[in-house]
Amino acid sequence: MSNKQKKKGSADDLPMMQKIVGLCKRRGFIFQSSEIYGGLKSAYDYGPLGVELKRNVMNEWWRSMVHEREDVVGLDASIIMSPKVWRASGHVGGFSDPLVDCKICKARFRADKAPAVEPGSEVKYRTKGKTIVGTADRAYVCPECGSPELSEEREFNLMFRTNLGPIDSDDSTVYLRPETAQAMFVNFLNVQQTYRMQLPFGIAQQGKSFRNEITVEHFIFRSCEFEQMEMEFFCEPDDSDKWLDYWKEERFNWYVNLGAKKEHLRLRPHEADELAHYARACYDIEYEYPWGWDELEGVANRTDYDLRKHQEASGKKLTYFDPQKTNPETGKQGMHFHPYVIEPAGGATRAVLMFLLDAYDEEPPSEGRKDGRVVLRLHPRLAPIKVAVLPLVKKDEWLTGKARDIVKGFWSNSVNAFYDEKDAIGRRYARQDEAGTPFCITVDGQTKEDDTVTLRHRDDMSQERIKAGEAVDIVNAELRKWIFRHNS
Amino acid sequence: MSNKQKKKGSADDLPMMQKIVGLCKRRGFIFQSSEIYGGLKSAYDYGPLGVELKRNVMNEWWRSMVHEREDVVGLDASIIMSPKVWRASGHVGGFSDPLVDCKICKARFRADKAPAVEPGSEVKYRTKGKTIVGTADRAYVCPECGSPELSEEREFNLMFRTNLGPIDSDDSTVYLRPETAQAMFVNFLNVQQTYRMQLPFGIAQQGKSFRNEITVEHFIFRSCEFEQMEMEFFCEPDDSDKWLDYWKEERFNWYVNLGAKKEHLRLRPHEADELAHYARACYDIEYEYPWGWDELEGVANRTDYDLRKHQEASGKKLTYFDPQKTNPETGKQGMHFHPYVIEPAGGATRAVLMFLLDAYDEEPPSEGRKDGRVVLRLHPRLAPIKVAVLPLVKKDEWLTGKARDIVKGFWSNSVNAFYDEKDAIGRRYARQDEAGTPFCITVDGQTKEDDTVTLRHRDDMSQERIKAGEAVDIVNAELRKWIFRHNS
Repeated sequence: MSNKQKKKGSADDLPMMQKIVGLCKRRGFIFQSSEIYGGLKSAYDYGPLGVELKRNVMNEWWRSMVHEREDVVGLDASIIMSPKVWRASGHVGGFSDPLVDCKICKARFRADKAPAVEPGSEVKYRTKGKTIVGTADRAYVCPECGSPELSEEREFNLMFRTNLGPIDSDDSTVYLRPETAQAMFVNFLNVQQTYRMQLPFGIAQQGKSFRNEITVEHFIFRSCEFEQMEMEFFCEPDDSDKWLDYWKEERFNWYVNLGAKKEHLRLRPHEADELAHYARACYDIEYEYPWGWDELEGVANRTDYDLRKHQEASGKKLTYFDPQKTNPETGKQGMHFHPYVIEPAGGATRAVLMFLLDAYDEEPPSEGRKDGRVVLRLHPRLAPIKVAVLPLVKKDEWLTGKARDIVKGFWSNSVNAFYDEKDAIGRRYARQDEAGTPFCITVDGQTKEDDTVTLRHRDDMSQERIKAGEAVDIVNAELRKWIFRHNS
Repeated sequence: MSNKQKKKGSADDLPMMQKIVGLCKRRGFIFQSSEIYGGLKSAYDYGPLGVELKRNVMNEWWRSMVHEREDVVGLDASIIMSPKVWRASGHVGGFSDPLVDCKICKARFRADKAPAVEPGSEVKYRTKGKTIVGTADRAYVCPECGSPELSEEREFNLMFRTNLGPIDSDDSTVYLRPETAQAMFVNFLNVQQTYRMQLPFGIAQQGKSFRNEITVEHFIFRSCEFEQMEMEFFCEPDDSDKWLDYWKEERFNWYVNLGAKKEHLRLRPHEADELAHYARACYDIEYEYPWGWDELEGVANRTDYDLRKHQEASGKKLTYFDPQKTNPETGKQGMHFHPYVIEPAGGATRAVLMFLLDAYDEEPPSEGRKDGRVVLRLHPRLAPIKVAVLPLVKKDEWLTGKARDIVKGFWSNSVNAFYDEKDAIGRRYARQDEAGTPFCITVDGQTKEDDTVTLRHRDDMSQERIKAGEAVDIVNAELRKWIFRHNS
């Protein structure tokens, strides 16, 4: 059975999603957008902790995909591209959902997401307080009231349309990109030639994409505005199966290395009837969300479809020249050809949700702690704050001064440290546990005597005394150890 | 005289701009968007070097504005917000330019940017091969053909409009944000309360904004899609003059600390007739571009205008509560009030152009170098690549292996190193000079004997032998020295 048919509850039905949404609002990870105006459908704003978490996810992706590889370079293209790009890619003609109106309750819905029934069967629905019996003439009924009285299906394009320049006309119509990928195809030669790249090589991009989704769901899982992390890896056609295999493993391991639990992840090959028309093969990296297994990232072999389409539409040659290769048609050395493309396409927004879900933990009350606690066991590389520095007493200027000095020491070593003097120490620890901060350092009376501070570990709440002057080195060493432990 | 009236040449007229555009294209900093389709008006894509430079500029801003401050936190709001936000802020009603059509040549242009003439004066223009004499009935004529035969002025709103959901109607109209600032006002209470911020404090945000500009100019200086770096600093109304003063200096110094030449920068207070209606005072940080002094960043005292407007429109109280303050009306302790706001609003795109211009240098041929060179003297923190590692001979596997090991050593210390084995060593140095790479390390035959490599300094091309095993430490120390030298 394909995963597309599984039933999804709304975020509100699921206790785990309620907890995550609540924590995100309470601690300042994620707010509803324009909340004071009643919000905007499925739009979210990332607060002080959320913006750091999302930045960390995206920076880790950039580090592993661009900085620490010889064969991949970056790109940052404009969101509004020439409309010709989207005509050539097929998005203007084909990127659409079938929409239907219910004639009874006026709901508008996606035909392919509506509840299935046997065509010709008898169905009951209620309207104006009465139960009506009707006959289904299609394979689905209205998801709201259950009626089979439906309008024709109309194709609704998912791209947001706007106009560039002062005149609203077909000539000035432009689109917000629905994916970042096409920019890599359109810029293929510019990048390859100016940066002198040889096959195999990749072009990576992160950034916002927009889809006018009718069905938004599960908090930040599916929304109209989202953040992508995509890479197009150009290779010899004959090597594309091998590279698909390489990249699906590489991407799977990326999530695991950043602390996602392996048992919550799986690689699922697409079945033949699931494959996009341009794809030769595809794997979904899936995560076990509270509503079941669902997509986290897709890794596809897009063949040479895109480069050929853009070459055809633009009239510009988008081939790679290999001076070593022998052209089988002419028998001569040197050959122009269209590379194949392997595309790992991840979502930063989706990854943020996954890492939050995977890190969320509740500890029941215990002997040492009568209240229990909520703790986000985020990997230190993802944690918004690496270390919180807390003077035990706010009114003691020596303690606050010392704590601030320690914070500055971390800053000058590029470690994101946070100073907090508000409330009792227990409440401050609890806040940092909920923020996922791996370490807390407390400056107290004893610090005055022997220049030691308390280092508290988030995961087991253990505490130790360390020298204040060694705090930066010790925390840095702990962070490195952790990364090693998780990677091995 | 206000700077608004100065005449601007197009980018193409200015030799310096031609050089920068040429370098950007040649080295892969910035390409025209959708180039294979003939491009899109004023839209640009950042190539492998450009994306790194822009990321570095934005990360440095984030570091100094958010990470290394106790009193500022981050935000990342959605680009599409509730349209009510833009009605309350005045953007729906007032964010417009006066547009005029020429009845002779059909050009459409901004009245406030058109060439000035004396109303009632005689003007000559050419059409269909003839010279016509007419009378100007306004203070300007057509910028294309010079005719005074013009349509009425119409106000054209600069916000891009689109529709959320499947129906295009006024009810579904939404806008692409024309600035990031409003999200900070709308989220003021969410951030203040969840993060327990006390006055004075700031909320910072970076990201894309969109303006349907009729007049785009000077490469990436003014385009329809651009990247902002804005911070709203909330403070006591009585302290707002002091904080404006603080932030104008702080922001000016930020550019200087990142290597911009002080003599190319100035702080210009707005004259009374230049001030936006909501502003009490404003400074422009201006740079001396090839076309003259022009804006780099604005630092404004926005008063409590925005919070009041959004409170009025949303019906939600957007005040700050100070439990220590005595309410002058009631004489009781504890007071709700609207903070004032100081806003340093910079452009990442504009900063990229400024740093490129400021770093660009041409060295004439000299005794030691017959060709001369182009070198980008970028501050190391901004340089896309920090160190390039070059095996002298590509075919010697020992050299390439050794060079790759050194690269990996940099990567594991989070230093963005680049491996390059293509072409003769002189051409590779020249490429790195044009990319702004501060250091090159060359692995050669002598490395096999004594494990030393050549360290080449970008700015004076001096070379020294260093131990391969100490390369990471030495380059890191050099980078730190540099930062110190520039900051002091």
